[in-house]
Amino acid sequence: MPFSVAIAGASGYAGGELLRLLAGHPELDVRTVTAHSNAGQPLVAVQPHLRSYGSMILQPTTPEVLAGHDVVFLALPHGASGEIAAALPEGTLVVDCGADHRLEDPADWAAFYPGEHHGSWTYGVPELPRAGTSVREQLAGTRRIAAPGCNASAVSLALAPGVSAGLIETDDLVAVLAVGPSGAGKSTRVDLSASEMLGSAHPYAVGGTHRHIPEIAQNLRHAGADAVRLSFTPILVPMARGILATCTARIRPGVTAVDIRDAWERAYDGEAFVQLLPEGVFPRTADTVGANTALVGVGVDEAAGRVVAIVAIDNLVKGTAGAAIQSTNVALGLPEGLGLPLNGVAP
Amino acid sequence: MPFSVAIAGASGYAGGELLRLLAGHPELDVRTVTAHSNAGQPLVAVQPHLRSYGSMILQPTTPEVLAGHDVVFLALPHGASGEIAAALPEGTLVVDCGADHRLEDPADWAAFYPGEHHGSWTYGVPELPRAGTSVREQLAGTRRIAAPGCNASAVSLALAPGVSAGLIETDDLVAVLAVGPSGAGKSTRVDLSASEMLGSAHPYAVGGTHRHIPEIAQNLRHAGADAVRLSFTPILVPMARGILATCTARIRPGVTAVDIRDAWERAYDGEAFVQLLPEGVFPRTADTVGANTALVGVGVDEAAGRVVAIVAIDNLVKGTAGAAIQSTNVALGLPEGLGLPLNGVAP
Amino acid sequence: MPFSVAIAGASGYAGGELLRLLAGHPELDVRTVTAHSNAGQPLVAVQPHLRSYGSMILQPTTPEVLAGHDVVFLALPHGASGEIAAALPEGTLVVDCGADHRLEDPADWAAFYPGEHHGSWTYGVPELPRAGTSVREQLAGTRRIAAPGCNASAVSLALAPGVSAGLIETDDLVAVLAVGPSGAGKSTRVDLSASEMLGSAHPYAVGGTHRHIPEIAQNLRHAGADAVRLSFTPILVPMARGILATCTARIRPGVTAVDIRDAWERAYDGEAFVQLLPEGVFPRTADTVGANTALVGVGVDEAAGRVVAIVAIDNLVKGTAGAAIQSTNVALGLPEGLGLPLNGVAP
Amino acid sequence: MPFSVAIAGASGYAGGELLRLLAGHPELDVRTVTAHSNAGQPLVAVQPHLRSYGSMILQPTTPEVLAGHDVVFLALPHGASGEIAAALPEGTLVVDCGADHRLEDPADWAAFYPGEHHGSWTYGVPELPRAGTSVREQLAGTRRIAAPGCNASAVSLALAPGVSAGLIETDDLVAVLAVGPSGAGKSTRVDLSASEMLGSAHPYAVGGTHRHIPEIAQNLRHAGADAVRLSFTPILVPMARGILATCTARIRPGVTAVDIRDAWERAYDGEAFVQLLPEGVFPRTADTVGANTALVGVGVDEAAGRVVAIVAIDNLVKGTAGAAIQSTNVALGLPEGLGLPLNGVAP
Repeated sequence: MPFSVAIAGASGYAGGELLRLLAGHPELDVRTVTAHSNAGQPLVAVQPHLRSYGSMILQPTTPEVLAGHDVVFLALPHGASGEIAAALPEGTLVVDCGADHRLEDPADWAAFYPGEHHGSWTYGVPELPRAGTSVREQLAGTRRIAAPGCNASAVSLALAPGVSAGLIETDDLVAVLAVGPSGAGKSTRVDLSASEMLGSAHPYAVGGTHRHIPEIAQNLRHAGADAVRLSFTPILVPMARGILATCTARIRPGVTAVDIRDAWERAYDGEAFVQLLPEGVFPRTADTVGANTALVGVGVDEAAGRVVAIVAIDNLVKGTAGAAIQSTNVALGLPEGLGLPLNGVAP
Repeated sequence: MPFSVAIAGASGYAGGELLRLLAGHPELDVRTVTAHSNAGQPLVAVQPHLRSYGSMILQPTTPEVLAGHDVVFLALPHGASGEIAAALPEGTLVVDCGADHRLEDPADWAAFYPGEHHGSWTYGVPELPRAGTSVREQLAGTRRIAAPGCNASAVSLALAPGVSAGLIETDDLVAVLAVGPSGAGKSTRVDLSASEMLGSAHPYAVGGTHRHIPEIAQNLRHAGADAVRLSFTPILVPMARGILATCTARIRPGVTAVDIRDAWERAYDGEAFVQLLPEGVFPRTADTVGANTALVGVGVDEAAGRVVAIVAIDNLVKGTAGAAIQSTNVALGLPEGLGLPLNGVAP
Repeated sequence: MPFSVAIAGASGYAGGELLRLLAGHPELDVRTVTAHSNAGQPLVAVQPHLRSYGSMILQPTTPEVLAGHDVVFLALPHGASGEIAAALPEGTLVVDCGADHRLEDPADWAAFYPGEHHGSWTYGVPELPRAGTSVREQLAGTRRIAAPGCNASAVSLALAPGVSAGLIETDDLVAVLAVGPSGAGKSTRVDLSASEMLGSAHPYAVGGTHRHIPEIAQNLRHAGADAVRLSFTPILVPMARGILATCTARIRPGVTAVDIRDAWERAYDGEAFVQLLPEGVFPRTADTVGANTALVGVGVDEAAGRVVAIVAIDNLVKGTAGAAIQSTNVALGLPEGLGLPLNGVAP
Repeated sequence: MPFSVAIAGASGYAGGELLRLLAGHPELDVRTVTAHSNAGQPLVAVQPHLRSYGSMILQPTTPEVLAGHDVVFLALPHGASGEIAAALPEGTLVVDCGADHRLEDPADWAAFYPGEHHGSWTYGVPELPRAGTSVREQLAGTRRIAAPGCNASAVSLALAPGVSAGLIETDDLVAVLAVGPSGAGKSTRVDLSASEMLGSAHPYAVGGTHRHIPEIAQNLRHAGADAVRLSFTPILVPMARGILATCTARIRPGVTAVDIRDAWERAYDGEAFVQLLPEGVFPRTADTVGANTALVGVGVDEAAGRVVAIVAIDNLVKGTAGAAIQSTNVALGLPEGLGLPLNGVAP
């Protein structure tokens, strides 16, 4: 019998993507969807692409409505997850697609977020290279999962193999990301309107202010880094979905291109959802649209003394909802890839 | 045991979309993929979004390679299907995604296509309203299927309910379609380059020259029209996929808005893949991306004396590859929706 | 000495485009710019593309601030122009880029707009074919100009030549327009956000409700039509600017393709800003971006019995700000094309 | 009397942009346009946005056709300029928009280009900080100008102020650029087709192979750098025009954020076409479309120890044709900004 599922925040992009993916999942059965201002409306009126959920009505987002399910996905604005999660039974698997439970260090939290730190949950990127207990081992049986930040996931997957193998310096990393606007959620901001974004590229959160920076540093420390210093710049570009993270790091003395290639190959050998491309090939975001797949390209720029690792993901899938479901599969002891598409929707 | 499948033309967009959809189909097992100039290469080198077919190699497109499969999908350039189909066993289910076997009347063919007419196969739009034997009945057990033209499918689904119910005049139809460039296939044409298309809308085949016109007329005649006169203008717009067909027809005297609503409701009542939207709601292409779903909106413009029926589809799915698989399901006696997504990839 | 100019609503798209164009106008000198919520800010902080206005500060939009200029352009939300215009001296040339003063018939106004009818001003499309006194003659010396609605301008220019020459029926016109979102102004609407619009086409105001319909009918009546019945459907597509209006009309009995060609050639012969393309050629919006140029293609679909006239314009230039400046040039006795670019920014 | 101008390669994007800009230039009069395969056709048939050149016919690209003009702009494929330039009189001002005459060091040339090195001409970025003789002084009176590479121009303008002031290390620079496809010229490449690029971001020339790298290094050496090591990655994104160059460099010990701000302010103080944005503000490409303006934002990331300098330009204007005309103005002793727009076409 499938596990029963509730989704809080079903009217947003992350909630919608959870629903799109779960429609094809044989062991997770969506019974309840909730929203805030849209409560009372048919789901399909708010998410007109979700045709398979025709008769479902959005309920209000309350602990009472969410209780009684095996799995509760929270796709809520920042700061809203903690209280609701606390009101749910310990035995319920709660998966937070927001940022509230990702950071382990209260100092990191305080430096980048307002409000109280709610503690950290098991981090939902199963493939992430990690010293000691693997992410998968941590996920098995857990009842609290923090889905990753989409940009953090991309940059961490790009660089962790080199960190883990001790091949790159971590004190002068540079990441520039071309990102689509859906990562910002359903938006009424003028700067995210179609008129402003069509035909334009523009940066935001320049100069070390983006909230995914401490999350990346935490991931790379778990992969073996001592100190992490990262220049991180996201660039909004006119594509609805997708992240292309171009990440570079200084290569340690004596490290060869073969060493680099080997490290990245070993890190993702056998992984279904993190695929290293052949030498000299780098990924496009189009090839990951709608899929839970991260495509990784890595090369060495001898003249610059840097490795260049480029990762493409769909921010709403591998960056959020797909990672949440993949981690849920692991936590529940289901096949890890259940219900998750490998193939992108291209062109 | 699943049916064995070969796909000819697997390096193109239609072939790629067949493969993307069939990756999730439990009863159709892709054994062979073929191509022309790309034969010998790994499929994934040419179609980098198709990660689940990792080790598959493109074979040359010959009858010998294609023979021995239960189902052969042909996704070939115009004119190439006839000869290959003739060389395949009669018992093989052959599905032509090209135009060669759609038109029944040799005069229609001669007026719009060069070369010889190859005869017509069973038309692959199961939901199309039709007088007499239904399309589904025709598809059951057939071994030759002609998948529809993407634009023809959209316009026919928009207008056939009104034709079938005798509510609209068919001698002065007007259809204007916003279409993405993927309908033209992988292209080296300058006018379909990103530089030319980004930020621009431009028409083509203006003034009655588009090849889907006789196909639409044929469909509407089967729905009950006597004569069909259609002004048809496709507009290329900067979205990779999608067709939004805005179709209008003069309403017959005495016909009311309620009559119109009723006719469209009856026509698609119970259909999974052709869904009529609520009154006053009209579709977006985004909601159908990657899905086998046609969304239909219909309304009456009393002042203009015309019905406006607007259909959104993904040209590569419901317009081509999805229609092909849906029709194959019917022909093989499988559940009609097997392997076909209902939910679009939005935003 | 140049004329002094004030622009009310300088923080919006129409106001911004007036400023962009006037930066290159030798006889119109922008002295004052006003805004509502942005008053007090530097213009360039709100309109960062307007680098030539570096030190100019946005003033509040009041009659006191606007008075004392030779020309006042109003680029205000619907309903705001009437009161301000009434408070300005009669000798001031006031150009309304909004809808308040376009419709002559109070019944038209009441059917499509809320609030009181403010009367009509001279209509700002100098090239529009018109029976009796030409638009140019009406504009000469006038002190009150109503700039056209962008969609109305496109459709009227497409069809008026045929109406004027008596070649087409006006009781069953059909226009479908691919339009960019900038026509809706700076927007905080979710449906106009980049996430929703990228990769999608969607209709709005379906079924005869768009406010430009009575404006088009008025224009075509002035061109000689008795009754006008028009099916009008705008489709939002992912390009920041541009309108591609595909307009069709039944051809009157006995009218030939040569008659049609002749009528459109005569209508726009010698016009700089409305150019008829060669036979068989139809326009792209890209070729008009940033330019005050309307490109017109016309053809006959013999099988359908309809003429197809397609017009491309930049909605913010020929559709709004360019038309306003061109009409101002005429009203002030300046060369009509002064300060107005003919060449589009393509690709 | 204006100078007479010929443009070789008028059918391409760079040639088209020269023509668009020169249409508004009072002292440069285009008399002759040439092309290769399009010779004999009307210019407007190939460049339908250039409505002001209605009657002009494309001539073949030969020294005979080009001779006899005061100024000849060469917008030709790589390798074609040298021979033609050699055949033109020494007194003719020849401006090469291609790469043939940019690199001074034959070793640089040999490392990145095939074929013979043709020597170097005066480099056409007047504002570029430079030790010793300024670029403007070099341009004055010259008869041979090498217009810059578009990406090289953006990155050099971003970083040169810090190099010139000795504030940043030049041995570990990182630049990632979001670029539109028009930089690649009119293209028949599948990977630059609209279907492939819409909704996607993808890198090219990863790992130190891009030809603009030695050009940037040369510029930074002229600004005072000893050795230059640069990691350079261009990312194609779905906008027709535009470059957003995100450039970072390690800050030298003891350098403060105030030092950085001062250096960039001093470098571009009084420049019309290179404008430093206020502290905390970074540029968008949309604001530079169609304009000869480079917008520069600079900030310090204390945690990362790097300066982040971001430059937005229109690759076809400030990156190519606008730079060519601006440099021509200097060479001919005309006002430097003549005929060059400051304001972008936004939204």
